[in-house]
Amino acid sequence: MSEFDDATHVEADGSSAIHDGWDINGNANGGYLLALAANHLRAVSGRPHPLTVTGHFLAPGTPGPVQVDATVVKSGRRFSTVTGQLRRGDSPIMQVTGMFGDFSQTNNAFSHIAGGPPDLPPMDECVARSPGQGVVSVPLQQRLRVRLRPGDESFAFGKPKGIAEVAGWFAFADGRPVDTVALLLACDAFPPAVFHIDLPPGWVPTLEYTVHVRAVPAPGPVRCLFRSQFVQGGFFNEDGEVWDSTDRLVAQSRQLGLTPLA
Amino acid sequence: MSEFDDATHVEADGSSAIHDGWDINGNANGGYLLALAANHLRAVSGRPHPLTVTGHFLAPGTPGPVQVDATVVKSGRRFSTVTGQLRRGDSPIMQVTGMFGDFSQTNNAFSHIAGGPPDLPPMDECVARSPGQGVVSVPLQQRLRVRLRPGDESFAFGKPKGIAEVAGWFAFADGRPVDTVALLLACDAFPPAVFHIDLPPGWVPTLEYTVHVRAVPAPGPVRCLFRSQFVQGGFFNEDGEVWDSTDRLVAQSRQLGLTPLA
Repeated sequence: MSEFDDATHVEADGSSAIHDGWDINGNANGGYLLALAANHLRAVSGRPHPLTVTGHFLAPGTPGPVQVDATVVKSGRRFSTVTGQLRRGDSPIMQVTGMFGDFSQTNNAFSHIAGGPPDLPPMDECVARSPGQGVVSVPLQQRLRVRLRPGDESFAFGKPKGIAEVAGWFAFADGRPVDTVALLLACDAFPPAVFHIDLPPGWVPTLEYTVHVRAVPAPGPVRCLFRSQFVQGGFFNEDGEVWDSTDRLVAQSRQLGLTPLA
Repeated sequence: MSEFDDATHVEADGSSAIHDGWDINGNANGGYLLALAANHLRAVSGRPHPLTVTGHFLAPGTPGPVQVDATVVKSGRRFSTVTGQLRRGDSPIMQVTGMFGDFSQTNNAFSHIAGGPPDLPPMDECVARSPGQGVVSVPLQQRLRVRLRPGDESFAFGKPKGIAEVAGWFAFADGRPVDTVALLLACDAFPPAVFHIDLPPGWVPTLEYTVHVRAVPAPGPVRCLFRSQFVQGGFFNEDGEVWDSTDRLVAQSRQLGLTPLA
């Protein structure tokens, strides 16, 4: 079993565990937590793919046993909507709601695309995100093959670009395919784009995180682009796009994050 | 009491009503439904403003009595998270989760803005969205002062622009101020941007709708911009921005919609 499948496995009764090694400085990555919870909501839905999933982060997730509650609120002809919570005992970690289904009963004939994948060098000419960059420990990166567009790693060396944008490749270190559940992780697996602007130092917690899965990825690593256009009033957005090896958009994401109080 | 306050009033026990006249072809506007439900979640939270709210639409909302269920999942030092459902009897209309708080306990000193308000002529030189355009009846527009950028009304006359973008002004017809709850309506009050591309004819239902409220609007009408960059596989996104009279971003929105099966 792949590391990711093992780490997102949930028993039929909702019991699971936050696995070690999917964290940043000891707290589990938000995308990993969304994938873990959504994987159970998906099983409960009886549908193959997450189509849109929203998580509200309530407390940090540390390794150890957790429970995923899941309630089907509507099961329609094409889609099922499930809401739930990831919790440890009585302490909520994340509130989550998702819609699940597939892409076979929709209008696949029509498309209108304003945009395209980010222009990246080949994966092996991009830059590994080190598991330890500066004062931050990112064990998560040992599970992944995240490769940044050359230059996008400069924040780690005290040289932010001045524009809140990060791009790069995403795959699993153990070669597991990037499927629709993995996209929920991919959209949160890169360094925050705001690290490239002159923010006060400190952690930038995610409050809310939504991923729209837009297609089943073709085989191969995916290309990702993240941008924060609006940092104001203590909050920021981070918008993401993920593109597969056939140049097809496979996910869009948006986070609402909190800037350091400084 | 303003029309909007009347139409979004919810009793302390969660009982309310979908009011007549906030609909398109008989079905209540999704933004109105999100505002109605969020108004109750906000009251239950004890916090002044919605900060991020996500609705999953499960069934059309028609005029008549409804119930809003609301459960506080976390009440923190700065924010409260509330989840709930808008339903009629046992039939769910919308699943909703929101985070509520204010903008006084965050870092207001730092900002980084990549973008600005849409370039619009003065409101009275923009184009009223008629309550009846083509074969679609839009009573909602009698409650509002939605004024489109000249040219952006062309879809209604069989002349789509070929780019899925709509901009314009938003205010209430009765002069009610645009506050943070009203922003949840504003982000869904314009013609869908996809009406400007050559879609198969038919309704474009919203599946999921998230609004990030980014500031308390200054007095006056707000300027809005909506874009659908990715229409594929039967789904489309619509991303919105709302700017106030001081050129401050006050909301960002994103919808996942369904294109007609055709």
